[in-house]
Amino acid sequence: MKGRSARRSQKVAFQGERGAFSEEAARKLLGPSVDVAPCQRFEDVFRSLEQRKTDAAVIPIENTLHGSVHENYDHLLHFNLPIIGETKIRIVHHLIAPPDVPFAKLRRVYSHPVALNQCLAFFARNRQLEKVPFYDTAGSVKMIMSERPPDAAAIASEVAAEIYGAKILRRSVEDDRQNFTRFFLLRRPGKSRSAAPRTGKNSEWKTTLVFSTRNVPGALFRALSAFALRDLNLLRIESRPLRGKPWEYLFYLDFIGRVDEPTAQNALRHLGEQADLLRVLGCYPRGD
Amino acid sequence: MKGRSARRSQKVAFQGERGAFSEEAARKLLGPSVDVAPCQRFEDVFRSLEQRKTDAAVIPIENTLHGSVHENYDHLLHFNLPIIGETKIRIVHHLIAPPDVPFAKLRRVYSHPVALNQCLAFFARNRQLEKVPFYDTAGSVKMIMSERPPDAAAIASEVAAEIYGAKILRRSVEDDRQNFTRFFLLRRPGKSRSAAPRTGKNSEWKTTLVFSTRNVPGALFRALSAFALRDLNLLRIESRPLRGKPWEYLFYLDFIGRVDEPTAQNALRHLGEQADLLRVLGCYPRGD
Repeated sequence: MKGRSARRSQKVAFQGERGAFSEEAARKLLGPSVDVAPCQRFEDVFRSLEQRKTDAAVIPIENTLHGSVHENYDHLLHFNLPIIGETKIRIVHHLIAPPDVPFAKLRRVYSHPVALNQCLAFFARNRQLEKVPFYDTAGSVKMIMSERPPDAAAIASEVAAEIYGAKILRRSVEDDRQNFTRFFLLRRPGKSRSAAPRTGKNSEWKTTLVFSTRNVPGALFRALSAFALRDLNLLRIESRPLRGKPWEYLFYLDFIGRVDEPTAQNALRHLGEQADLLRVLGCYPRGD
Repeated sequence: MKGRSARRSQKVAFQGERGAFSEEAARKLLGPSVDVAPCQRFEDVFRSLEQRKTDAAVIPIENTLHGSVHENYDHLLHFNLPIIGETKIRIVHHLIAPPDVPFAKLRRVYSHPVALNQCLAFFARNRQLEKVPFYDTAGSVKMIMSERPPDAAAIASEVAAEIYGAKILRRSVEDDRQNFTRFFLLRRPGKSRSAAPRTGKNSEWKTTLVFSTRNVPGALFRALSAFALRDLNLLRIESRPLRGKPWEYLFYLDFIGRVDEPTAQNALRHLGEQADLLRVLGCYPRGD
């Protein structure tokens, strides 16, 4: 803790209001005393780091119920901001109200539509409560604390309740406990090398890259052979459309290993023979 | 045309208001005189067909700028409604107003946020126009025609302008002409066989399937080998999270070929040896 609070000029950008799950991820990655810069859109997060307004950025990349945050995959390609860390957060939704509002008075619950839809069993048990879509989970806590409607609560994180001085009325109202979001930590290119020296076991690292294949039969299979033939373990693959080339795709791929290690270097050279585009987006310690 | 209008009891479900791009796709797939059943949500579209309220359903599955409509991949797995056709529509956005509203009076433009963001160059050239997010493209035309604000237009399809009796003020205001959406035509299981006899060349058909692999190194590579070793041409692969098994994935895959043809049958048997789950979602004539 002490070591972390010492580097206290650090400022991290994330999307959402104060108390967003991204803020929780940022604190887990950079320590509890990190300065925060909430941004309205994901693009603003990337731009803030690129323009040196912040020292780091934290973005959600995939959720175990909803899948990838595709917009952020697109931004990773267009900005040159390497991934230098990852973490996973369990998404726990709480029912949160101003301290003077009791559960019995509640008639409306504000939150982001995705969060509301992750608490359907709770709403089925409490039919007096109307779901009201709002732009942000933590933002809905901020709103009920400033506007103080007498019959309204919000669904958001514990951190959001703390930050805005609200009270948790019901804990863990989400339907599915297997709800995790994975976040990436990004830096500017120069900083990344010094920040994370690549030491330790190969199996303790992950590499994320993006490539496009020529549009010929078997292209993806041959691309994956660069890893399979060298026993490199792929963790996931995500496809995105290639702009300007309808029905062609980019593939984003995570494998276990350090990018500077000989086997990975051979695999990348092999993949490079077949790929029109190939870029390593980051190499970072596995966060579990 | 005559043959098509003869089977006129046909009713097709799609998401959105009358005049949505899905309606355009439905008419292209089923003929101009098909009866339509607009639905609020994608889930309602699937349910409408399952519950025999409609004879067919048309759903968007991917867009060349935005990628897959992931929700519909999830519904294809959960409902048993085979894909029996596909088509592609170029997304052309028009600026549409009531007949008595001239361009010079316009100050606000309503549409779905995605459509507004696909016309940024037009808004940059016309700074007097404010973008106003609305729930639906065609729905924004419906709204301006019923409420008649004196300074508002909508961005939507030509079909939407026709249906609601509005006027196109500026044609093709979208930034990117390479904007296509691919749609699937679905039926109930019994009907599909009679509706589309599988004749003609193998290369004129597509098969879509979903599978999950065991979580072991090289699993996806080996799964794809079932196709690559038989020279079956994969067109795309899409991954989705597997519910209840964090960080494991389902893969949706399209290949060229008829599912009942011997090579495809061998590939499916080979894939089945390695896959925990394997289901063919449909085999349908290629729509280009």
